[in-house]
Amino acid sequence: MSLLRSWIESANAPEGDFPLNNLPYGVFDDGRGARCGVAIGDLVLDLGAMEAMSMLPAAGFQGSALNAFMEAGPGVWFRVRNTLTGLLSEGAGAQDQMRDPLYRRDAVAMRLPFRVTEYTDFYAGRHHATNVGTMFRGADKALPENWLSLPIGYNGRASSVVVSGTPVTRPWGQVKGEGFDLPVFQPSHRFDFELELGAVVGRPSSGMISVADADEMIFGYVLLNDWSARDIQAWEYQPLGPFQSKAAATTISPWIVTRSALEPFRAKTPTRDRPLLPYLRETKPGLYDIDLEVKLATQDGAERTVTRTNYREMYYSAAQQLAHHASSGCPMRVGDLLGSGTISGADSDSRGSMLELSWGGKEPLDFDGQARTFLEDGDTVTFNGHTKGRGHRVGFGDCTGTVRPAVPLPDWAKEETT
Amino acid sequence: MSLLRSWIESANAPEGDFPLNNLPYGVFDDGRGARCGVAIGDLVLDLGAMEAMSMLPAAGFQGSALNAFMEAGPGVWFRVRNTLTGLLSEGAGAQDQMRDPLYRRDAVAMRLPFRVTEYTDFYAGRHHATNVGTMFRGADKALPENWLSLPIGYNGRASSVVVSGTPVTRPWGQVKGEGFDLPVFQPSHRFDFELELGAVVGRPSSGMISVADADEMIFGYVLLNDWSARDIQAWEYQPLGPFQSKAAATTISPWIVTRSALEPFRAKTPTRDRPLLPYLRETKPGLYDIDLEVKLATQDGAERTVTRTNYREMYYSAAQQLAHHASSGCPMRVGDLLGSGTISGADSDSRGSMLELSWGGKEPLDFDGQARTFLEDGDTVTFNGHTKGRGHRVGFGDCTGTVRPAVPLPDWAKEETT
Repeated sequence: MSLLRSWIESANAPEGDFPLNNLPYGVFDDGRGARCGVAIGDLVLDLGAMEAMSMLPAAGFQGSALNAFMEAGPGVWFRVRNTLTGLLSEGAGAQDQMRDPLYRRDAVAMRLPFRVTEYTDFYAGRHHATNVGTMFRGADKALPENWLSLPIGYNGRASSVVVSGTPVTRPWGQVKGEGFDLPVFQPSHRFDFELELGAVVGRPSSGMISVADADEMIFGYVLLNDWSARDIQAWEYQPLGPFQSKAAATTISPWIVTRSALEPFRAKTPTRDRPLLPYLRETKPGLYDIDLEVKLATQDGAERTVTRTNYREMYYSAAQQLAHHASSGCPMRVGDLLGSGTISGADSDSRGSMLELSWGGKEPLDFDGQARTFLEDGDTVTFNGHTKGRGHRVGFGDCTGTVRPAVPLPDWAKEETT
Repeated sequence: MSLLRSWIESANAPEGDFPLNNLPYGVFDDGRGARCGVAIGDLVLDLGAMEAMSMLPAAGFQGSALNAFMEAGPGVWFRVRNTLTGLLSEGAGAQDQMRDPLYRRDAVAMRLPFRVTEYTDFYAGRHHATNVGTMFRGADKALPENWLSLPIGYNGRASSVVVSGTPVTRPWGQVKGEGFDLPVFQPSHRFDFELELGAVVGRPSSGMISVADADEMIFGYVLLNDWSARDIQAWEYQPLGPFQSKAAATTISPWIVTRSALEPFRAKTPTRDRPLLPYLRETKPGLYDIDLEVKLATQDGAERTVTRTNYREMYYSAAQQLAHHASSGCPMRVGDLLGSGTISGADSDSRGSMLELSWGGKEPLDFDGQARTFLEDGDTVTFNGHTKGRGHRVGFGDCTGTVRPAVPLPDWAKEETT
């Protein structure tokens, strides 16, 4: 697919994330309140204002979240995208009327793009599951027995989801040191990022759904950092899974890149080692060819790209995850967010977490002469990702967060000294 | 505490769940739409109407869920309870004005009392955890290593929560039979109930909270049936916990019994085998003396009480669970629902699930000559519970659900036959 040229010149830059081909939706605030918008080049177009001027079909853009637009359904999504494409194309007529509702992106703050109804995180990257399994259970039984049959998932905490740029505070939690009988309550010493893609559910379901129908329910995708406290997780996760280790924060990128924008970049899930049950079978390629990278910057100013990988590395697609999620009859709702699971590649520099990059802390990364294992206070982790078209790309913008020190322990949580 | 007498005679019956001492909140529908109400004896009082007539302080009762009332905060909860107690007391003056907003409870349908923001389920009953652990891991290591240090919990699915009376459909899911290499997709053969109490969070938090503060955040309690597909759970739960096995449905009783109503019935958590970390320590008794029972009725009309137990059997209180939930900084919100975990007693007839009652299916219950292990289609499971005061009780009403057969398998989910 080629670049669609826009009269907004910055949208035609070959290395820009937001050409006319993209048109991702978000919520911005210029100081006068949060409003729905669409990114185009260096600008953001106020969709509430456009709707109020009747330059767009009525589509639910008057609020401060995209949920109402998603609720309006695929017919409206299609008409709005078509209308915007027309209005923003090179040579379009209504340019004068659009000066007021256009803002510079670098002059506005981005908010959470939608109210997260429920958040589910998966474990669907084979390299990640193999790496983690090898570290904890040995190479022979790295993959759990069920891994090749179903996309393993667990429910996360929707209240933990924050927009890119929000500082993330190192969590306190119960940790039990090796060789100790009892746990202590302390700030996590093994705080980590996880590189993921988040799928945003735009249509509800009640009852079982096919993978094809599940795919149609996905409104779009965001980058997602599933911050993880490995030491808290190690102590708490048996037998019912991760809980407080994943609850401090989950950062998402501010722009939802729609399924429509990603459509030309579909990629197949890998060959199956084991046939999937029919309810998980795909009728079209379920992944996307999205290059991803993770940058780590310290508070001293050192910065390094620590990971380069691609969303094609996943074993299960978001549509398969959603079909599995609904297989028990579990109702799915507009605004549900599904984390892909950590996206690691096969190579040591394509691993999507510090846990894997430092091999459980045993092989520190060299960072300007500093040995680094997990995240330190003041570290900033930034994800970005994009597909590559001819002469353009469809990108996600940044998903970033800086680690703040743990809060001081309140007096009531201190050990009594006698 | 003695019975508070009401001019509504049915509220003075010693065996009734809803005396003036109780005043539980719910949402009812007489065919003209769902409205907030309070139960008193055999009647329900329309709180929206009472508020509109200015017979109550403004308290958020105009909607069809109790969330706005909970958002209004403890000052408003206190004033409304005081006002209602006055209006409904024996000898109160305004009886004539209250004829219109009073409805017979048996003539109205009950709806979900509040929008469930997020749902978390715990595993905080020692007898239950010991029973399950003994079955799966042997008596020597029945309790997981972390169990005596923290209230183990996992995030459940808020969209699965339904009100008492809603039929529950047997879920499909992946199940792997013993001795088989691969799983099959089939209706659960080991569908079960779990007897729990649900705590309803009425105040938000951001950051760590003490157990004392957590207690103040709890608006009230409901009975909760955490329907569980044991065979789906056995295959899916490693390493990240239960997922689709718990997602088909979670039934709650329609009336939220407030913390205020339960206050006279507080009971201590048990002596600790291992000291708790300071952030989990209690400053007052955290449990309640609530007698609980489970009745099982078959579609042939046979009925039996299968379990009698008490909420005092729990090791961790809801306030401790909530404090632990927030310990990582995880934001808690109004409308969050926390399941206590299965409430089993020490004796074989006080176990809170069929898994335990039938000891993993190996010791079937005798049921009118039928051997029963897990739930069959057409079975109705009914929980009830109450505290015992002098000459009265404070009860929850029923929490009930009937198991419907699994839905037919859609064609796209069938194995291709060649």
